[in-house]
Amino acid sequence: MPVLNVGGVERLDASNLPAYARGCAVLGSGGGGEVGTYLLQALQAVGDFGPVSVVRLEDLPDDSLVMPCGGIGAPTVSFEKFESGDEGRVLKEAVEELTGKPVAALMPGEIGGGNGLTPVAWAARAGLPIVDADGMGRAFPEMDQETFELAGVSPSPAVLTDERGNVVVLRPVSGKWLERLARAVTVSFGGTSSGADHLMSAEEARRACVKGSISRALAIGEAIRDAEDPVEELVRVAGAVMLLAGKVMDVERKTTGAFARGRAKIDGTGAHSGSALAIDIQNENLVATEIPSGRVAASVPDLITIVDEQTAEAIPTERLRYGQRVRVLGIPCDAMWRTPEGLQLAGPSAFGYDHEYVAVELLHA
Amino acid sequence: MPVLNVGGVERLDASNLPAYARGCAVLGSGGGGEVGTYLLQALQAVGDFGPVSVVRLEDLPDDSLVMPCGGIGAPTVSFEKFESGDEGRVLKEAVEELTGKPVAALMPGEIGGGNGLTPVAWAARAGLPIVDADGMGRAFPEMDQETFELAGVSPSPAVLTDERGNVVVLRPVSGKWLERLARAVTVSFGGTSSGADHLMSAEEARRACVKGSISRALAIGEAIRDAEDPVEELVRVAGAVMLLAGKVMDVERKTTGAFARGRAKIDGTGAHSGSALAIDIQNENLVATEIPSGRVAASVPDLITIVDEQTAEAIPTERLRYGQRVRVLGIPCDAMWRTPEGLQLAGPSAFGYDHEYVAVELLHA
Repeated sequence: MPVLNVGGVERLDASNLPAYARGCAVLGSGGGGEVGTYLLQALQAVGDFGPVSVVRLEDLPDDSLVMPCGGIGAPTVSFEKFESGDEGRVLKEAVEELTGKPVAALMPGEIGGGNGLTPVAWAARAGLPIVDADGMGRAFPEMDQETFELAGVSPSPAVLTDERGNVVVLRPVSGKWLERLARAVTVSFGGTSSGADHLMSAEEARRACVKGSISRALAIGEAIRDAEDPVEELVRVAGAVMLLAGKVMDVERKTTGAFARGRAKIDGTGAHSGSALAIDIQNENLVATEIPSGRVAASVPDLITIVDEQTAEAIPTERLRYGQRVRVLGIPCDAMWRTPEGLQLAGPSAFGYDHEYVAVELLHA
Repeated sequence: MPVLNVGGVERLDASNLPAYARGCAVLGSGGGGEVGTYLLQALQAVGDFGPVSVVRLEDLPDDSLVMPCGGIGAPTVSFEKFESGDEGRVLKEAVEELTGKPVAALMPGEIGGGNGLTPVAWAARAGLPIVDADGMGRAFPEMDQETFELAGVSPSPAVLTDERGNVVVLRPVSGKWLERLARAVTVSFGGTSSGADHLMSAEEARRACVKGSISRALAIGEAIRDAEDPVEELVRVAGAVMLLAGKVMDVERKTTGAFARGRAKIDGTGAHSGSALAIDIQNENLVATEIPSGRVAASVPDLITIVDEQTAEAIPTERLRYGQRVRVLGIPCDAMWRTPEGLQLAGPSAFGYDHEYVAVELLHA
């Protein structure tokens, strides 16, 4: 389990957003969208509209409406297909019309990568707080792979929009249908979309979320930033397992069906010479396999984060390239993902693998 | 122009639905879905819930809400993927929630093929009348190819549903986006969906529709049924041009992107020996080209209907097969489609052709 005592952060502003972004990148498991663009968006939004208050679910009245939100689609597409900036307002207004209630706070659907930052920008523009929680504790490729689903929060209604102002309201019969329909709409939009789903009251959210996600991302980012040995500090602060020190040797990549899919090969260097890992990618790093034995070194739902060996900056899957000197880390996922229900939704079998899940810290005990 | 004086029909019931279905098939230009299954649905619905009143737009109060509706997708899929029967209710309730108004009457989005019948079944179940009008005067493959678009009726909101109970509300920025998003959702549903779009008041509908469509379909169907020479009578009653008497020699067909696409080759027989036509298909028959000259014999937006040489029953594109003895008819489209705006939306260029449209009756004058 990730062991991390963090004091709750009270607000996000220009002073801490860069560190927060670093932490989101680490928690992205390679995905959630590269944080660069989204950090700029968030910085501009807090510059224009002021800091964003971070609230705990416990501090919200029971019946407050919490809006989980973020971007959907292939990170490779978001490099060149930007938001208009108005998506958060469009989503909020659609959600308020659908529920007949004012949105009390935004929440990242996933804390990982750019999706930890997008809701901050939207919250700043809307003058709303953001909840110190999320629905994954990381990033996952599919929309229904959220702790909200495990807790039985209805996936209906959900709202999608794009930079042109198209709006689609989904009332799916299940989380699987949410993912299927949202994916189809996202492909139509050009490969990315902005969405809000699993709308819930603060009372529901308290038992449906990974708590403290924003504080955790910020703590990780600050630790990396301030450390003498950033990788060592990251391993400590995130409760990570060092899987490999090495060099990126090969990256296969294709963008299909609004997913960035691929495979990376990393050869060990220094003390790890002779070892190698293959990393399977679907937006996020899914599974790390030892070459040539085929033994699983780390697997969903645990996080696999590849970081620069010097700075410990997480490298998103779409930025992996030959020659990068990296450390591959396995980070224990939230306990909700290690239940039978959690593994069914986001474990190996959910991605078509037939290996049994073993917690990363036990694999390397 | 189609010259046809018809007395308005007052109701649809078991006594006239079979003839009405025959007429819808003729107006389908090969598409709109084979009428067989949909006729059974409509017959069961009027059997269970009573006849459906047919009303004229002039008889509805100005602010009555008219709901154009029908099926979307590939006719080839609808052979094996049936409705649950509840789709009409789901659409009506979603529309009423979206508009805050009760639906006063249903209307076929397209009169052609099964889509002339589906709204009858839904109207029977809902106890609502159906309007003697439609949005095409035929069937077209794309959702925005409706006279509603030409008249400036907003394509937003639109509602889609499936037999599982999934509901999607689209608020597209244009008719093109309506088609694009609805098509993506329809593919996700498995290739067909049920939808309501271009919701409008009776006042708007009066200048946005092809009027008398139901009466026309019924008149055509009755004429064929009662005639001694059904094809000759069909030519007369529909104002059609006989393009070829022949035999189906070849059919290429594939179902892709929720469209049934293909090409048929028909060789002339008897007095037409030596002539041949190629028919391009996208759900509907789009263009008939003479072989080998390549001269266009008939083209969208005019109707191209292939009928059995004995019975004059229209053969939908998905039922074309080698050896059928047929007559190929060109039927003039509604005048709204012959305007520059109409041709832009549903003329040759809208389907990627570069020939100039010439009215079918002038091509063969």
